[in-house]
Amino acid sequence: MLAQLSQDDDVRLVAVRGGIGAVPGVRSAGVHAGIKLRKRDLAVIAFDQPQVCASVITTNEIKAAPVLVSAEHIAGDGVFRAIVCNSGCANACTGERGDRDARATARQAAALLKVSATSIIVASTGVIGVPLPMDRVQRGLERAIEQLESGVKSSNDAAEAIMTTDRVPKLAAYEFYIGEKKYVVGGIAKGSGMIAPNMATMLAFVATNLPMSADALQSELREAADATFNMISVDGCMSTNDALYAFAPAGEASPPAPFVRALHQVCSDLALAMVADGEGATKTLTVHVRGAKDVAQARTIGRAVINSNLVRTALYGEDPNWGRIIAAAGSVNAGLDPATWWLQLNGKTWVQPGAIEALSEAEAHSELELTDIVVDLHLGIGEARATAWGCDLSKDYVRINASYRT
Amino acid sequence: MLAQLSQDDDVRLVAVRGGIGAVPGVRSAGVHAGIKLRKRDLAVIAFDQPQVCASVITTNEIKAAPVLVSAEHIAGDGVFRAIVCNSGCANACTGERGDRDARATARQAAALLKVSATSIIVASTGVIGVPLPMDRVQRGLERAIEQLESGVKSSNDAAEAIMTTDRVPKLAAYEFYIGEKKYVVGGIAKGSGMIAPNMATMLAFVATNLPMSADALQSELREAADATFNMISVDGCMSTNDALYAFAPAGEASPPAPFVRALHQVCSDLALAMVADGEGATKTLTVHVRGAKDVAQARTIGRAVINSNLVRTALYGEDPNWGRIIAAAGSVNAGLDPATWWLQLNGKTWVQPGAIEALSEAEAHSELELTDIVVDLHLGIGEARATAWGCDLSKDYVRINASYRT
Repeated sequence: MLAQLSQDDDVRLVAVRGGIGAVPGVRSAGVHAGIKLRKRDLAVIAFDQPQVCASVITTNEIKAAPVLVSAEHIAGDGVFRAIVCNSGCANACTGERGDRDARATARQAAALLKVSATSIIVASTGVIGVPLPMDRVQRGLERAIEQLESGVKSSNDAAEAIMTTDRVPKLAAYEFYIGEKKYVVGGIAKGSGMIAPNMATMLAFVATNLPMSADALQSELREAADATFNMISVDGCMSTNDALYAFAPAGEASPPAPFVRALHQVCSDLALAMVADGEGATKTLTVHVRGAKDVAQARTIGRAVINSNLVRTALYGEDPNWGRIIAAAGSVNAGLDPATWWLQLNGKTWVQPGAIEALSEAEAHSELELTDIVVDLHLGIGEARATAWGCDLSKDYVRINASYRT
Repeated sequence: MLAQLSQDDDVRLVAVRGGIGAVPGVRSAGVHAGIKLRKRDLAVIAFDQPQVCASVITTNEIKAAPVLVSAEHIAGDGVFRAIVCNSGCANACTGERGDRDARATARQAAALLKVSATSIIVASTGVIGVPLPMDRVQRGLERAIEQLESGVKSSNDAAEAIMTTDRVPKLAAYEFYIGEKKYVVGGIAKGSGMIAPNMATMLAFVATNLPMSADALQSELREAADATFNMISVDGCMSTNDALYAFAPAGEASPPAPFVRALHQVCSDLALAMVADGEGATKTLTVHVRGAKDVAQARTIGRAVINSNLVRTALYGEDPNWGRIIAAAGSVNAGLDPATWWLQLNGKTWVQPGAIEALSEAEAHSELELTDIVVDLHLGIGEARATAWGCDLSKDYVRINASYRT
């Protein structure tokens, strides 16, 4: 397992099955609409009560039609009733037709659910530059909406229906307590690399039954995403369709600590599941950057290390090339001090300040034979820290991405 | 061959053999000092007359000792007489000892050449974290300085002596004319990826016999580097030892156009030789970004495309995934307009504005079967343009970098 975010407080969280389907008032379904040849390819997640919605979307200047249409809905009256997400087609770089198709999808789902079209979030993932087969989407929506159910099975079907090159569906849910009252945060996600123009994207949908305001949900989601989804990398590539949406019943209260912890934990579990399922990955890498002047510095340096092709190929080759780690850390001009940094490998002192090796090459090599590698990079500057998660760069990554057709 | 910088003017340049050794007043040597097991590993390039020196060095916060010592010399009295460069050892992350060794190398070479220690530029490339074997460096310097000669053979020896994973030595030289008088710009370089903490680095040494001021040389070198060395990428990784040094006899004149063209051409030839020799490369990629609002935008977008692992694996797989190109271009927030871009592949219209494919998948695939691929990305915004050069990401890149020991 990847090393998790540290638990700073004693909030009681209980992991439960079912992902987003574990949240009371959420019903889901995942069907085969025929966008893909055989597998489930259309998910619907519906909320019994109106929801507020928060989002973190791709910063790519090329945004897919469903991302833009959903952003318009979020800027609207702020009432949400369902998510529709297909795999097999990204509906990106599809021009005016893409925009029409995304709106038609929302309209069709809304009509079937008897809600307004602007209360639907639409998302797509798959091949770029190819239009959605709208007749199949329509028929798929009819079947999916008939099958909507609460619970584990239907949530798992939905998680499967949004997969592209993922090997496993990704679900996470935690119960938390406000006084004696129990609430749930749950989510589903997909992503194992922006594999392709074609089978792209990280998508995640999270919900809770704890009421809160849209602003509060947005600010907590942003923070959770910055510490989790934005700290992982499979290949450093950003999709046209990346999106994370979170939902809660409308309420005034700003969220209490147990919700914040549970949201972080759900996002962290889903993000780490993506890394572990990274294309061609044979090992995972957790980089704790410690002793930084601030969190921004720690995050910048952590991301530079997990994004380095040289660090990632060394990891694949179990090659204890600590110079690649420190060269990657120094390459982003984040204020590394060449005199004070030191490294730990799997908890053991690896390189002391002044670049003095504390582990022999043989010792370091055998640490790297493990499947889950933890590097602590101490900057020796301040007190802040951050964690980044990545995976190795294998010949299989090249194979998967060079020949997606086969 | 990679597509070259376009020739905007009618300056007459004549390619000549010998690299830096083609420049009158330059003598060079490359010997086996024993830092490596068998191959040449120590180069000396000496100038008959005092020179001014310009430099462009790594922006990595972790800089190797020879980079720092040379920067100190450049900040000094501004008189240069020789370059000493070893391969097989980067003298990086070697603490105080690294600093002492870099200074001792300069001192020993200076004593043998009967010049001042601060007139020596030192450079190293190879394994990080391992100290220089100074006894071997000393004996190697004695032999190299005895063997100093002008001309092609000794310059080729020097170019070989600075190689790490390079498959071929890299030399370029051009004659240019100021009125009837003939001058030369010549250079040697090494680099085929920042392969390793261990066998790292791009290094290039360029000289001319046209006198000019240090400031003029610095400003021309910076411009040439920005358009050439800074527009190539093998793996997006920046070394601790990267350095480009240029030398000229002291003079007052600001450089005339023929020199500027010749300097660009030498830098361009050396940079493209690195890309063509990129680790594991089976194909080269030239990306012309056109119709940009300014050169900075065109360069940022060009670099994003050649650095994308997804573009590079698609190239390796001859997979006409234009969505990967446009997604990479959009990921850097440089102001791409989603409505106006269009693409050419090897000079043929590939994707028209509005993401309309003009080549069939089969047609595009057969274009990608060539070894040298040229993509023109038209932004449809302004008049500026830039060119970036890269190579594909193959299974061999992973093999080379995962198991550098074997």
